[in-house]
Amino acid sequence: MAKYAIGLDYGTNSVRTLIVNVANGGEVATAVWTYEHGTEGVILSNDPNLARQHPGDYLRGFEIAVKAALAQAKRAVKGFKPADIIGIGVDTTGSTPLPVDEGGEPLAFRKQFAKDPAAMAWLWKDHTGVAEAEEITALAERMRPQYLGKCGGTYSSEWFFSKILHCLRTSPKVFDAAYSWVEIADWIPAALTGTELPSKLTVGICAAGHKAMYNDAWGGYPDAEFLGKLDPKLGKLRARLRPKAHNVSKAVGGLTPEWAKKTGLPAGIPIAVGAFDAHLGAVGAGIAPGTLVKIIGTSTCDMMVAPLASNLPDIPGLCGIVPESILPGYYGLEAGQSAVGDIFNWFVNYVQPGGPKAGSHEALTAAAAKLKPGESGLLALDWNNGNRTILVDQRLTGLLLGQTLYTRPGEIYRALIEATAFGALAIMNRFEEYGIKVQQVINCGGIAEKNPLVMQTYADVTGRPMKLSRSAQTPALGAAMAGAVVAGKFAGFAAAQKAMSGLKAKVYQPNKQANAVYRELYALYKQLHDAFGTEQWEGKLYNVMKDLIAIRNRVRR
Amino acid sequence: MAKYAIGLDYGTNSVRTLIVNVANGGEVATAVWTYEHGTEGVILSNDPNLARQHPGDYLRGFEIAVKAALAQAKRAVKGFKPADIIGIGVDTTGSTPLPVDEGGEPLAFRKQFAKDPAAMAWLWKDHTGVAEAEEITALAERMRPQYLGKCGGTYSSEWFFSKILHCLRTSPKVFDAAYSWVEIADWIPAALTGTELPSKLTVGICAAGHKAMYNDAWGGYPDAEFLGKLDPKLGKLRARLRPKAHNVSKAVGGLTPEWAKKTGLPAGIPIAVGAFDAHLGAVGAGIAPGTLVKIIGTSTCDMMVAPLASNLPDIPGLCGIVPESILPGYYGLEAGQSAVGDIFNWFVNYVQPGGPKAGSHEALTAAAAKLKPGESGLLALDWNNGNRTILVDQRLTGLLLGQTLYTRPGEIYRALIEATAFGALAIMNRFEEYGIKVQQVINCGGIAEKNPLVMQTYADVTGRPMKLSRSAQTPALGAAMAGAVVAGKFAGFAAAQKAMSGLKAKVYQPNKQANAVYRELYALYKQLHDAFGTEQWEGKLYNVMKDLIAIRNRVRR
Repeated sequence: MAKYAIGLDYGTNSVRTLIVNVANGGEVATAVWTYEHGTEGVILSNDPNLARQHPGDYLRGFEIAVKAALAQAKRAVKGFKPADIIGIGVDTTGSTPLPVDEGGEPLAFRKQFAKDPAAMAWLWKDHTGVAEAEEITALAERMRPQYLGKCGGTYSSEWFFSKILHCLRTSPKVFDAAYSWVEIADWIPAALTGTELPSKLTVGICAAGHKAMYNDAWGGYPDAEFLGKLDPKLGKLRARLRPKAHNVSKAVGGLTPEWAKKTGLPAGIPIAVGAFDAHLGAVGAGIAPGTLVKIIGTSTCDMMVAPLASNLPDIPGLCGIVPESILPGYYGLEAGQSAVGDIFNWFVNYVQPGGPKAGSHEALTAAAAKLKPGESGLLALDWNNGNRTILVDQRLTGLLLGQTLYTRPGEIYRALIEATAFGALAIMNRFEEYGIKVQQVINCGGIAEKNPLVMQTYADVTGRPMKLSRSAQTPALGAAMAGAVVAGKFAGFAAAQKAMSGLKAKVYQPNKQANAVYRELYALYKQLHDAFGTEQWEGKLYNVMKDLIAIRNRVRR
Repeated sequence: MAKYAIGLDYGTNSVRTLIVNVANGGEVATAVWTYEHGTEGVILSNDPNLARQHPGDYLRGFEIAVKAALAQAKRAVKGFKPADIIGIGVDTTGSTPLPVDEGGEPLAFRKQFAKDPAAMAWLWKDHTGVAEAEEITALAERMRPQYLGKCGGTYSSEWFFSKILHCLRTSPKVFDAAYSWVEIADWIPAALTGTELPSKLTVGICAAGHKAMYNDAWGGYPDAEFLGKLDPKLGKLRARLRPKAHNVSKAVGGLTPEWAKKTGLPAGIPIAVGAFDAHLGAVGAGIAPGTLVKIIGTSTCDMMVAPLASNLPDIPGLCGIVPESILPGYYGLEAGQSAVGDIFNWFVNYVQPGGPKAGSHEALTAAAAKLKPGESGLLALDWNNGNRTILVDQRLTGLLLGQTLYTRPGEIYRALIEATAFGALAIMNRFEEYGIKVQQVINCGGIAEKNPLVMQTYADVTGRPMKLSRSAQTPALGAAMAGAVVAGKFAGFAAAQKAMSGLKAKVYQPNKQANAVYRELYALYKQLHDAFGTEQWEGKLYNVMKDLIAIRNRVRR
């Protein structure tokens, strides 16, 4: 009799339930439910930096999407029974922390705070804590520089303590009413398993390590003295945070009878520690030592792992290096590009060259595909939304260079694609410079699935084959793997991946000629990159445009 | 009884006749005739570099446009009589040389060559002689570096000897049939006055000095040894070129009875030495020591004069410094930007942001006008067509920097306008660095007339009032002034300008606040300019984007 695991993928606008055959990774059913609060699930305000979610949506979404997926599975698979579900895994966005009371209830569930955005879950992309992030970074630089060493040197406004401190400063009623704060990656598994909150909360290492400066090397979360310097009330919160964080191979508990009754799932099936979508996505795509997993969408997340036993140095510019944040037994290494699809979307939606029809992604891709590498004479930097890796600098911007009186939109579109490929190569090179060899690259995400020109360009620019994850929903698949692992179906994630994940037959192979031109272009990109992006740079830029023209003239011949 | 002069303005597509009252500059009649050969007067071929004109069009155009203007004047001015016309001046495009036979006839008038483009006038924008221009530059660098000192260091494919040498190489039958070559600025006055060609041809200093390396300091045109090194046949041509060139205060001769009969003009009225449109345009706009005249169209021509008595140094980057090329008694100094309106046209016609309607000049200007200086965070270089002054480098290209995921077309359009203003300021600064003080700026040309946002931006960026020439057709007006001077109506051009030229009432005054922001932006522009445009540059670019963001944040506050 086939057995199944469920992956729950809590995204920005909706939750997805995926039912997976643990023997072969077959995705037998999936259901998506869009959150009902706010605009497509996001609570907004006049402040463009504010983005919140109502935690009730997570629970209601669980019930609705699970029931829908189960019904679909019954229709699709002969003999399928909900009792064949053996475990559940959960991935979420993050850092998305939520204030809870002493009894573990979200403050958002109280009438008093039912409409107060400060009492909601502070969604990953909420940037209201910009000032607090700078304050935390400055204090850590002076007082605890080691805290910044593992998160790229800068504490972000998107992260745990920036949001909590901003709440303390701007919504003191909510802050004072909160007993503690919990990432939704931890809160959802706790809610489904009836875990007593917050005292018995199981905290995941992924959120804690990447967003809250948690590290066993210094005793877990930042110490009370440090937090107290930011605000005495924040210092007091420290005692209410859990002492130890866990990886995704641990079960938080079993599904409560109440939730079992509501959904039809078997009571007591184990639910794994929660983790971020990108990280369980990497698991679902088949991450392993030597494998770079790239999730390519509006931005990218580039992930690798390295054995815990290895003597891993700090790697400048990496967003995070956290033990077991992706796979148990391995450091999780996270890099990324702040914008990829978003840059193409900007060109199409904001510049809209030629109007809505001529300027569509399809039309521009078709025009761009006709060009040879170097033919346009254009070179761009992929910094329209700053640079996450390897420069870790939000205050960088886009650059387009080489335009003449005859430059056409398709040429610019191609230059933008190439710029993101150069940015991807800079990340791969950084991994390798620090001894993390990239032996294969597995891509997933919307752009990897849908745009062959982008994938071919990445192969040509990097000189490496670009492979694609077989699954189109790797985060939910990775979560289902965690469910299967905590259910005891596999000895570990390597076995789960062997059974449940795989690659598409299509592999984008690098073209040698194209790669030769792109090596030259990358050298120029790197010149601009270093000139505009590093303080140390003292070289000249004189040759850049001339080399571009020479290359263009040569390839046109 | 009022007296009048005629200005004949031979443009790229048509000839304009302007009848001007010499007492007050009143433009009483004007007529335009589009040449009948080729496409809008330009003979083209499969080679995109080729652009020729049929010399017959110049003569037929004279007859038609003069008769039409006279008829119009009769209707417009009570008592007007053709006999009241006292002189004629001629301006033309250039360098536009024409092969003529020993009798002075254009070869194009012979049946044998009637359809041979090589026998036509080689229009200024004909670039077929690119290889020959490089050859001439290289030889001059080795053998006669002084020849390049007065023309910015590079001999252009648009100029006299590049075209002749290209004809020699590619159309030897035409070259061999030609006795000599004549600029149309010299040929048209000669034809109208019946001057015996080529032995008695009166050559203008403007064309000879700016385009044919003529300078009295080294005995006129380049010597036979130099030309002979390029090709022995070219060396032999040297003896058939005139020994002495003249300024526009000299009369070539009197209108022949034949032309008088054909047009109704009085026979014998003097015709001045011809000159280029931009230079007589500067005269028409009121050029004088301390006055910069900017002709702003698809590109710009920026002109000043300095007393011949002054100890004028070579000014690096200036296209040409030629005694009396603009005004008798003064050095003519010519600078320019390779593209201004052409950059805006590129953005509208090639990028076409938002489609044909949303991306029109009008819509983009309206959107750009709503922005404050520095607000977009964008910075551009105005090099889409290379940089004429002060870098004299065709191998430079455009650059746009500072774009985010929210940058809109109106912001880019404004950044392009600002870039051309920064380029204009770099030229003004270069004049002043070499002791040529800019005391006032007079603008003319299509963009100066039609786009107040451009003019205001130029005032704000340069911190100087932008004045406008009263006449919208300054080249023809300047030509008419030359006609009045050679007719003896004025002692010189200063008196002619005082009587006949003037300014519009509207003056664009610089805004102090805007100028303060633009000073900061110009410093960043100069950083990019020097980084990308000069070989000597060794500085850092690190601050550019950060400063831009800081400025943007500040002005948005």
